Amino acid sequence: MARKIGMVGLGRMGANMARRLKDCGHEVVVVHDLRKEAAEELAAELGCEAAPDLSAVTAAADVVFTVVTDDEAMRAIFAGDALLKEAAGTTFVNCATISPAVHQEVAELCDAAGAKALEACMASSIPQARDGTLYLMIGGDQATYLELEELFRDLSKSLRYIGETGRAAQVKALVNMVMNINTAALAEGLGLGKALGLDLEMLCEVFSQTGANSRVLETDAADMLARDHDCFFSAEHAAKDSGIANMLAVDAGVDVPLSKATEAQYRRLMDLGRGQLDKSAVAELTFPGRLDDA
Amino acid sequence: MARKIGMVGLGRMGANMARRLKDCGHEVVVVHDLRKEAAEELAAELGCEAAPDLSAVTAAADVVFTVVTDDEAMRAIFAGDALLKEAAGTTFVNCATISPAVHQEVAELCDAAGAKALEACMASSIPQARDGTLYLMIGGDQATYLELEELFRDLSKSLRYIGETGRAAQVKALVNMVMNINTAALAEGLGLGKALGLDLEMLCEVFSQTGANSRVLETDAADMLARDHDCFFSAEHAAKDSGIANMLAVDAGVDVPLSKATEAQYRRLMDLGRGQLDKSAVAELTFPGRLDDA
Repeated sequence: MARKIGMVGLGRMGANMARRLKDCGHEVVVVHDLRKEAAEELAAELGCEAAPDLSAVTAAADVVFTVVTDDEAMRAIFAGDALLKEAAGTTFVNCATISPAVHQEVAELCDAAGAKALEACMASSIPQARDGTLYLMIGGDQATYLELEELFRDLSKSLRYIGETGRAAQVKALVNMVMNINTAALAEGLGLGKALGLDLEMLCEVFSQTGANSRVLETDAADMLARDHDCFFSAEHAAKDSGIANMLAVDAGVDVPLSKATEAQYRRLMDLGRGQLDKSAVAELTFPGRLDDA
Repeated sequence: MARKIGMVGLGRMGANMARRLKDCGHEVVVVHDLRKEAAEELAAELGCEAAPDLSAVTAAADVVFTVVTDDEAMRAIFAGDALLKEAAGTTFVNCATISPAVHQEVAELCDAAGAKALEACMASSIPQARDGTLYLMIGGDQATYLELEELFRDLSKSLRYIGETGRAAQVKALVNMVMNINTAALAEGLGLGKALGLDLEMLCEVFSQTGANSRVLETDAADMLARDHDCFFSAEHAAKDSGIANMLAVDAGVDVPLSKATEAQYRRLMDLGRGQLDKSAVAELTFPGRLDDA
């Protein structure tokens, strides 16, 4: 039996995942977004329905992917008569990076409605969504995971079942917490190097060959030097994700001064009206003179 | 003409560099350390003189390597009648990680004494000193560097002339600044993961495959989990080096909140009497319960 697939939240991640699933021969039957035109455009491209409201998504699909921005949006789509109206038998695959506790809340709501919920946390970006090469971590009931495993494989080059609901979101929060700190660290090192008048290409090369090496050196250093902050992962998302980790740390009684300093840097970027830039834009705060030419 | 080599400061780095130079056929003629027995032991091992004072090192050697701990020690060995007594024609190769400004001070003192000075900053650790596989960055007069290039190649698998005096120390300070932040970041991620009850082997694997990856994940994560803090690079050195970078940042007017938070973490370890542990011991501050069993 071919599953009928719905997609809620048509940002670049969600839209690309829908395209990828269609490319792989899955039946993408319905899409939805608060921005009506975005939904209609993608529906036209994929030859499917643009749902007028959320309950229409659930009515049309067996498996509904949700890719929304934050805790609040997540709570909104699962509230009252939205996605969970007559949702018995539907499986929701929730891909947003949100608090582990909200994943648990949503799983309980789904359970009460006779629906199933999985969390699918993505540690990759837009091109990987399009190519089906996401790094995908799944949390929730393992039997439900196994039912959808093949579907996930079409989206992912690295698929991993992490554990019960909330666990994948915890791991994702920790990944982004460390990534964001390393990014802000790199911005400090390169910004100070610039202020000292060092050759920054040389400095990056030395970093890459020493204890200062990191994944973000590969992905973000050149963008920091060139001030190329086209958004793959926004400063605003970085602030949100570091914030999730920092809340987990408060609840767990763990001291995370670097992660707090990192969240503050990203919030500062937002206060300066630059939250929509890529996370590499944290270098705007540390390179001499950059804040002057807003 | 074979150069006669002296070594001042016989910690594990200096002693291993002396052994390596001897292995490579160089004439290591004299060694010195404030700890007299350390000097006598190494002198016996290498079949050379243990100098009774610093001026005896300069009297015996053409090229003197110095590998001391900090700015203060560096100023002390170049003060008054110490190394610079009758030092005309001697070349000093200064390997300590110290402030760029102190390298400049020392270079001026050497110049006034008719001696030459190079800075040789090492971005590697004890085994690399023994094997001659150091990552070596040289600052100072380029002609003097070229005179000693072959000697440096015997110590190094990656040799790089950075620029005028102080430049190599600046790059080294930035390398260690970023490395120390990334280390403290990893300690926060793993400590919080532990508090959340996650499988930390799994978490490390996910880190390694995502934006959280870093060189220190490779070098320090297992030690953090196992509480194996045998010292390769001490917490106290980490505090000192981050402190050098933070002073450079103050002078340059660059805001480095993460590096400041990192220095504070390493100073906290020192205050707890754990400054002699490896820098990976920063995880003692973030793993639940570890501070309780001092």
